Amino acid sequence: MTLSTSIADQLPDAEATVAAPVRPTGSAVQGVAVTDVQLDAQGFWGVRQAVNSSATLEHCLQWMERLGWLTNFDRVARGEVTHDRPGWQFSDSEVYKLLEAMAWDLARTPDPALEATFSALVERVGAAQDDDGYLNTAYGHPGLPPRYSDLAMGHELYNIGHLLQAAVARFRSGHDDRLVEIARRAADQICKEFGAGGSDAICGHPEIEVALVEAGRAFGERRYLEQARLFIERRGRGTLPVRPLLSAEYFQDDVPVREATALRGHAVRALYLTAGALDVAVETGDDELFGAVTRQWEHTVARRTYLTGGMGSRHQDEGFGDDWELPADRAYCETCAGVGSVMLAWRLYLATGEVRYADLIERTLFNVVATSPSADGTAFFYANPLQQREPGEPAGDGVNTRAEGGIRAPWFEVSCCPTNVARTLASLGSYLASVDDEGIALLQYASGEIRAGGFVLRVDTAYPVEGAVRVRVVEAPAGAQRLRLRVPEWATDATVQFGDDAPVSVAPGWADLTRSFVSGDSVVLRFPIAPRFTWPDPRIDAVRDTVAVERGPLVLCLESTDLPAGVAIDDVHVHPIGAPGAVDDGARLTGTADVVPSADGTLPYRPEPASVAGRRPIELTLVPYHRWAERGPATMRVFLPVAD
Amino acid sequence: MTLSTSIADQLPDAEATVAAPVRPTGSAVQGVAVTDVQLDAQGFWGVRQAVNSSATLEHCLQWMERLGWLTNFDRVARGEVTHDRPGWQFSDSEVYKLLEAMAWDLARTPDPALEATFSALVERVGAAQDDDGYLNTAYGHPGLPPRYSDLAMGHELYNIGHLLQAAVARFRSGHDDRLVEIARRAADQICKEFGAGGSDAICGHPEIEVALVEAGRAFGERRYLEQARLFIERRGRGTLPVRPLLSAEYFQDDVPVREATALRGHAVRALYLTAGALDVAVETGDDELFGAVTRQWEHTVARRTYLTGGMGSRHQDEGFGDDWELPADRAYCETCAGVGSVMLAWRLYLATGEVRYADLIERTLFNVVATSPSADGTAFFYANPLQQREPGEPAGDGVNTRAEGGIRAPWFEVSCCPTNVARTLASLGSYLASVDDEGIALLQYASGEIRAGGFVLRVDTAYPVEGAVRVRVVEAPAGAQRLRLRVPEWATDATVQFGDDAPVSVAPGWADLTRSFVSGDSVVLRFPIAPRFTWPDPRIDAVRDTVAVERGPLVLCLESTDLPAGVAIDDVHVHPIGAPGAVDDGARLTGTADVVPSADGTLPYRPEPASVAGRRPIELTLVPYHRWAERGPATMRVFLPVAD
Repeated sequence: MTLSTSIADQLPDAEATVAAPVRPTGSAVQGVAVTDVQLDAQGFWGVRQAVNSSATLEHCLQWMERLGWLTNFDRVARGEVTHDRPGWQFSDSEVYKLLEAMAWDLARTPDPALEATFSALVERVGAAQDDDGYLNTAYGHPGLPPRYSDLAMGHELYNIGHLLQAAVARFRSGHDDRLVEIARRAADQICKEFGAGGSDAICGHPEIEVALVEAGRAFGERRYLEQARLFIERRGRGTLPVRPLLSAEYFQDDVPVREATALRGHAVRALYLTAGALDVAVETGDDELFGAVTRQWEHTVARRTYLTGGMGSRHQDEGFGDDWELPADRAYCETCAGVGSVMLAWRLYLATGEVRYADLIERTLFNVVATSPSADGTAFFYANPLQQREPGEPAGDGVNTRAEGGIRAPWFEVSCCPTNVARTLASLGSYLASVDDEGIALLQYASGEIRAGGFVLRVDTAYPVEGAVRVRVVEAPAGAQRLRLRVPEWATDATVQFGDDAPVSVAPGWADLTRSFVSGDSVVLRFPIAPRFTWPDPRIDAVRDTVAVERGPLVLCLESTDLPAGVAIDDVHVHPIGAPGAVDDGARLTGTADVVPSADGTLPYRPEPASVAGRRPIELTLVPYHRWAERGPATMRVFLPVAD
Repeated sequence: MTLSTSIADQLPDAEATVAAPVRPTGSAVQGVAVTDVQLDAQGFWGVRQAVNSSATLEHCLQWMERLGWLTNFDRVARGEVTHDRPGWQFSDSEVYKLLEAMAWDLARTPDPALEATFSALVERVGAAQDDDGYLNTAYGHPGLPPRYSDLAMGHELYNIGHLLQAAVARFRSGHDDRLVEIARRAADQICKEFGAGGSDAICGHPEIEVALVEAGRAFGERRYLEQARLFIERRGRGTLPVRPLLSAEYFQDDVPVREATALRGHAVRALYLTAGALDVAVETGDDELFGAVTRQWEHTVARRTYLTGGMGSRHQDEGFGDDWELPADRAYCETCAGVGSVMLAWRLYLATGEVRYADLIERTLFNVVATSPSADGTAFFYANPLQQREPGEPAGDGVNTRAEGGIRAPWFEVSCCPTNVARTLASLGSYLASVDDEGIALLQYASGEIRAGGFVLRVDTAYPVEGAVRVRVVEAPAGAQRLRLRVPEWATDATVQFGDDAPVSVAPGWADLTRSFVSGDSVVLRFPIAPRFTWPDPRIDAVRDTVAVERGPLVLCLESTDLPAGVAIDDVHVHPIGAPGAVDDGARLTGTADVVPSADGTLPYRPEPASVAGRRPIELTLVPYHRWAERGPATMRVFLPVAD
């Protein structure tokens, strides 16, 4: 991509009223408005969005009230000494992410009760704001450490980043009200404190960067973009104090953003920062920075990304590992990193229109974001490993550490994931389609109606359980238009059929139909949805000589729940000959249970390759990974060892 | 084993004057005294012990002085307010481990200069002791938190455990002096505080248990044994507060010791605790507890132990993983866990006389304990991974976090390993041989002289570089005696030759010679030292379809330093046909460098198994793992993928 014009000049003219989370200034490609997509309640994503609205928002609110994270605002407002403040220093951000989720939900579906809840929450937040705009319940008030006294771990700017994203959601939904005022005052205070000539510092957890750019776009404030640019440029100079086990890499302060070659360190930090850097590059026409971000994304996808789209290989620092370090069992794949990866890929898509970014978004949405919440929307995975060696303990209804045990938990000590899922599902519509000068592109397939670019499109599909997607033109703009349909990277035998025409083969990438559309036109996409084997790169040691099974965009897994009695999941080997059979939305394949003797007290290393003491043929049923552990504690594998 | 008599009755009669770290009361098998083994300075272990004496002790002392860890004692002694105290809350223990190392060194080789240094250090420590015996520089004094106010992380009892072990070393070296007095007063204070009727609590880091038993044995104090027993029995009732990411399992407080089935949680904590539990079981005749410890060891060895003998699969909590969770790249294998494993296995050996425990000790000594220190004894590995994916950065001469980068570092933020290596090397002699009513057993082979059980034995060997061990009888007790020689588990073609007799094949286990020995008798053991392939259990996912190479007791590894130019270690595959060739103390084998294409931006998962784009035959040279990274930063593998 060449950023040929100084897009930044147009910043003050940014559209404020399109209800989308990301609106690059002057970009040729724009996501559709959240308000322009109506998902059917029974579709894959429609169900999840409805559960999010009806259950998750209230669930999050209740937990934050119960734990005192909301009362923290009240206490600051009352001037109480708050040295016994409950919650981590970033608990404010959970409130803001919930406000963002509520704002998107309200934009889609006005609801007086939710509106009242939202407004009351905003009032509680606003009451805690200082006269100069500073807003934080863990610093800068009686009984608390001073403002900005621990930039590495204090999360003060991170929190305001999330406040700004909530305010953008509210503003773009047509409400220039109290939340917007609060957030802008907080942003102004940050610009004053950390602007040119001010404190030459950064926040230990990136987020303010991406938020300031979007706030600049929404509110037409060039100062916010400039502040984001300063924060990006200040990275990588080692200004944050390193702590035991928390390296400069963890804080994304080890190397300047434009010099880095791969995402590394804390995965969520890396992804949020890089999304912000991409935004700055786009808005300032900085080709070098844009190239650096693209290069990092490409390297990371090729060597540091899981089959699920999950990112983050290490528990210790919630971080990326080295190239090819992708253990299935200790995969961290934090739900929030999945959200962050969608954020980054979405911005790259809007900047380039390249289909590969939408491909990764699909993979990540179905296999990370959709995996986290339980069916009822009140329990969540924080980490999303691709192998569970021991069945987890039921999480109960208390606060879980990070639910490492293979069970979704209602809340966490560090509870960033539930609200991150909530705001993503609430704004999901914007990621489904984009418009440009030539027409409309459908990026993700979900039953519902999309109004954008002069089109009204009705989409009917049982995707991803079935492979047919029917698009009906309800309304179309006059003249020749391009209807662009994404053919996913895995769909090597797809066809597209216009009206009664014969189906035409389409390769992965784009299926473009350019014509004058009229109401009643229909297009049917058919994707090969049969289960298929997928082989990992041989350099990924952790899954050498294994194979995975995918079906459409879904990664499948084997759960012990589906194993015959007496068969341990570690003994299962598969015979990847032919294709796996289809069953429901999963797969069936043949394998063996191979029992290798082991002797207590004897090391598991032998002078000869292990000989199998007993081999028993078994039929294996695989289910979508996003549903795993829903039937109770289980062991689980995505990658299955291949039989000799 | 049946603990048929109440050994505890004999406690007050424990031998105080045998200079050995572990002396189970009334045990049929006892390790030899540190003072009864004189290692040749040029042998494998003799070199390391000499470097430990000449370089490591002073190195540790200098670092602790430089960082203020010694001044902490002076400041407490002066009554200074010490809220800005440098070092972790367990830095006192490093001083005590150094004192233990010095005590063993002085026992072996009197040295007035070291004696003066030792005494001065003891004086500084003693000056900080409170009137009631409490001794700690991080709690209980002006500007510090109160005594025992943070049992989970405070390490107060842990520290005193190491003080007691140092005092035992001093006492058993024939010095009932100031260090012994200090330690006994500190132990008495603990018994008063935490004894029956006192605080019903435990320490977050086990160590006091194993130390109290040994102090009880050395000083004839049954109270100490009883206190250790109480601490062991109090475990597993969840009395320690759990913290975010630090579980009850981490603190060894999740399940009672006698109910646990495997070592789990923090590896060093688990190993120290279990060593103490075994001691308590032995001293109190507690068969159930003894059985529990044996079961845990057997399970752990079979499913949670690395080829090197290393233990600990996770960085996050420095802990054991699940069964079969043994990643090579993220292997933690803390040096201190190696020391802890030797401690546990040694106690199990003394209690049972079973050769398998001595086998694990050999493996761990050569491949973990010997791997940590640099050749000059002034830099150390903290973690000992079996694969290094990216060359480490040179550690420099500053304080390293934990030297995860594949380079030995002079000191660490948490610097437990250097002093643990130092005390182990200083007391190594005791682990080399044991005596019982029937004679003497040689357990580990090192050139030098051993005087024990009425024997004086001269051992000459280039082991492990060569496989011949010559044992010459210099003196022997009158009458029939058993000379027992350990034949390692890997030595499947060993022979033993008495004098001019023909060599006789001996199977792994014990080679026993029972006769009336006379001065001049000689025995030659010959071990097959040719490099050999070793295959991991197929349930260890992380190393599936790989093979390792061992040579005698040494695990070998491939370092990038030895690869042809242009060959990446991740591309190397080996052809394990026939046996590897021998070269110096390593091995040579044939393989290929297989280049698999990867495309940036494309996920490393494919619809077909990867096809090799380029294959090039290469000769591979493997070197002993314990020497890796001595030639500078390198990538490294122990387990090598097998070619198709």
